[in-house]
Amino acid sequence: MKTMIMERIKNKDYHDKIMSAMEAAALIKDGMTIATSGFTPAGYPKAVPKALAERIKREGIDLKINLYTGASVGDELDGELARVGAIKKRLPYQTQSDCRNKINCGEIDYIDMHLSHVSDFVRYGFLSKIDIAIVEAIAITEEGYIIPSTSLGNTPAFIENAELVIIEINTRHPKELEGIHDVYQPLKPPNRIPIPVITPKDRIGETYIKVSPDKIKAIVISDIPDSVKEFPEIDEISQRMADNLIDFLENEVDNKRLPENLLPLQSGVGAVANAVLGGLVKSKFSGLSIYSEVIQDSVLDLIDSDKVNIASGSSLTLSPKGLERFYNNIAKYKDKIILRPQEISNSPEVIRRLGVISMNTAIEVDIYGDVNSTNIMGTKMMNGIGGSGDFTRNAYISIFTTPSTAKGGKISSIVPLVSHCDHTEHDVQVVITEQGVADLRGLSPKEKAKVIINNCAHPDYKDALLEYYSNEMNQCHISHKLNEALSWHYRFLSTGTMKK
Amino acid sequence: MKTMIMERIKNKDYHDKIMSAMEAAALIKDGMTIATSGFTPAGYPKAVPKALAERIKREGIDLKINLYTGASVGDELDGELARVGAIKKRLPYQTQSDCRNKINCGEIDYIDMHLSHVSDFVRYGFLSKIDIAIVEAIAITEEGYIIPSTSLGNTPAFIENAELVIIEINTRHPKELEGIHDVYQPLKPPNRIPIPVITPKDRIGETYIKVSPDKIKAIVISDIPDSVKEFPEIDEISQRMADNLIDFLENEVDNKRLPENLLPLQSGVGAVANAVLGGLVKSKFSGLSIYSEVIQDSVLDLIDSDKVNIASGSSLTLSPKGLERFYNNIAKYKDKIILRPQEISNSPEVIRRLGVISMNTAIEVDIYGDVNSTNIMGTKMMNGIGGSGDFTRNAYISIFTTPSTAKGGKISSIVPLVSHCDHTEHDVQVVITEQGVADLRGLSPKEKAKVIINNCAHPDYKDALLEYYSNEMNQCHISHKLNEALSWHYRFLSTGTMKK
Repeated sequence: MKTMIMERIKNKDYHDKIMSAMEAAALIKDGMTIATSGFTPAGYPKAVPKALAERIKREGIDLKINLYTGASVGDELDGELARVGAIKKRLPYQTQSDCRNKINCGEIDYIDMHLSHVSDFVRYGFLSKIDIAIVEAIAITEEGYIIPSTSLGNTPAFIENAELVIIEINTRHPKELEGIHDVYQPLKPPNRIPIPVITPKDRIGETYIKVSPDKIKAIVISDIPDSVKEFPEIDEISQRMADNLIDFLENEVDNKRLPENLLPLQSGVGAVANAVLGGLVKSKFSGLSIYSEVIQDSVLDLIDSDKVNIASGSSLTLSPKGLERFYNNIAKYKDKIILRPQEISNSPEVIRRLGVISMNTAIEVDIYGDVNSTNIMGTKMMNGIGGSGDFTRNAYISIFTTPSTAKGGKISSIVPLVSHCDHTEHDVQVVITEQGVADLRGLSPKEKAKVIINNCAHPDYKDALLEYYSNEMNQCHISHKLNEALSWHYRFLSTGTMKK
Repeated sequence: MKTMIMERIKNKDYHDKIMSAMEAAALIKDGMTIATSGFTPAGYPKAVPKALAERIKREGIDLKINLYTGASVGDELDGELARVGAIKKRLPYQTQSDCRNKINCGEIDYIDMHLSHVSDFVRYGFLSKIDIAIVEAIAITEEGYIIPSTSLGNTPAFIENAELVIIEINTRHPKELEGIHDVYQPLKPPNRIPIPVITPKDRIGETYIKVSPDKIKAIVISDIPDSVKEFPEIDEISQRMADNLIDFLENEVDNKRLPENLLPLQSGVGAVANAVLGGLVKSKFSGLSIYSEVIQDSVLDLIDSDKVNIASGSSLTLSPKGLERFYNNIAKYKDKIILRPQEISNSPEVIRRLGVISMNTAIEVDIYGDVNSTNIMGTKMMNGIGGSGDFTRNAYISIFTTPSTAKGGKISSIVPLVSHCDHTEHDVQVVITEQGVADLRGLSPKEKAKVIINNCAHPDYKDALLEYYSNEMNQCHISHKLNEALSWHYRFLSTGTMKK
């Protein structure tokens, strides 16, 4: 233990601050705003939130906090705290089922934010002041600086703006992870200068997070792993979406609208996104680069197959097998992967400059190309918008993928009108389902409607969509029968299917 | 005439290209894509489109073009060509009534685009190839370069990507306008570098547009003025919105969330936006700057009252009186005004870097803060999204203003669900009506609903909104009664009022 501490916490002044998770958790009081490391779900603190939940249960106290993170975090944080009713307000993104259920029953106030906005909103004083930042790290340098673990998220801005900091040193991650991070924090306007990322491989900051030593109130030792799930086998639907995507990209290259090695790729989080990106392994493309939020297992496949030269993101969201593979070849992968703060990975400035090709998943798309990414039937929060808006809005080409149906065919993902709008008709350029590709660039709404219905809708719903989009409507710009526009969703809620 | 030509067209090789508007219009053939200068509505070509319309009428020919502009243009272009049925496809923004009517009856295909996207979409080959660019200019330099008139818009990218160029030299504008423009064109990814605007006053390009001389096929002399309307007197509702805005900004300064001289201001186009910005003349603020799209009359007031040091935009959208005032003091104003291409004035990169405070007008806002800027009752195109998305999405603080009612009280601008979504709940931070201010930052949807209804809705509609947003719904995240969500709009269409 002593050797480990000497190795991991090089600044000896910090050794006095080591305490148990339960002691650190006692610093957290009712009404506080707690901001943590962690991004989809990698590199979040685990021991202290578990201890806090344990304390709340044991002592039967009523303690509620505002919880700010990078993006989604694991059960040890969102799950444990949601189950003991300790979360009052939550931002900016979540995927944990107990947390989601409490949001959807109104017990947790959830702010569903663009990931690129969070650090700025904290910096500008738009959100409640951060009382304590809890940060997972792999080590502390001699200068007392923090070396983060498997994600960077909003950690630098949270630390800078927090009253106190608790560090969880997680010994499960090898020290060799040091050097993968690139910590850069923009100044506040009017003193902000260009973010100097010109290519995805540019390192513009430091490999550690600077912190004033007197802010650090507790250091806790932990070895709890990140709770990233294994990805399922790629199913036929995902495979067909991936094939359609690659056909589309090949066609863009053939028509000189993209260079042969494409442009930097972004892919959303989750199994479908992982499968779609993984489809590139078998493609003819090479010399690719990734400028995204999450580095999922498929990125390791793309690096191993020499398809990808550089991958920039904000987190290593690797399955247990993927993480093992990463750690077994850490020198090789570290050379090709950069982790950045999410305000840089998701920066509108950098995304538009690099010409990122964005690929995100939709819950539903309407006939004019509006996309719902968040609320099932307009009323049930799934996860949140995450970074999809940051990328979509500034992409070179913005692409959304979705299977054409859900719930065994009872839901059509192509609908007359989205029941909640996260990406507007102005932002969405390409829609891909297993049925085909709708390229909406340069099309008017009435042209879009035909392409989306004909190329992307499931055959079971095509006639009903064409009926909705009748000839009479075809005479206008955007048209809706306002008393029917949301009737498909209403029917599903009433009868269990969108089918008539 | 000869003196004027020698003065205005300094490159003598170009003198042979001078011809009548009718001769130049003969270059335009059926099926062509024509891209023009012009921005809300300033600096658009007038003589050639008028001649084209005249020719179509006289010869009874069927000639249809795709028409791309910077933003809205005047009657001589959109009006004349729409009335003779010569517009097949139109982008990215319009305000002319005949053009709008043809869009809403389905005769013109309209693509309602973010203004910052257009030049890139042309450059990337996402839109049909430009056959002819028609550009209004005040002069041509000895090198054969073009000095634009009262706007810059997409003109540089249109000229670079057009097959042929027609120039309208408009002698109504004094030669002294030269020097107001700052022409900068980004490279295509992957070779794009940071746009070096660090403060609103930075000039980063040239005062003219370079062009290959052999592209120029015609030069037409004209003296038709821009058709900007006089602004109406500021009404009581607009005055109260302006007062509410200033109260809000003062409160931000008091709470240290904004510096004393604020941050660069953006204001949308139109009478309400002009009135709201003009409200700052009587405020206590000074040392202000503007980083916007349009320079309207209120900006001259702000410069004259020493409130504003620098105003950057893409067009001089001045009323006839405003333009006269500008030209009478051109040296003074030229020192404080910069006209940029709209991809720079509306650049997400620059807007987020500078920390622009965006102020745009909404058609309607729903109880969760989604905004409709474009389609009345979800189905009737008003003007278009323009630059509101470019600014809103990247602003330091994004503000929307709207009178709480329209049509003499028969329409509530606060509705259960927007009938068309242009700005999502994730993007909209502050809503201001004459009733009050809803500051949505850091609020969950259910908190937003209460603040929007209580602070912004008209008393005539408050109870009905609170009834919609019932206690039962209050228990969830975002909730809608899907069979009622659009019933207010449906009721208006059926009965002529949203009132029950």
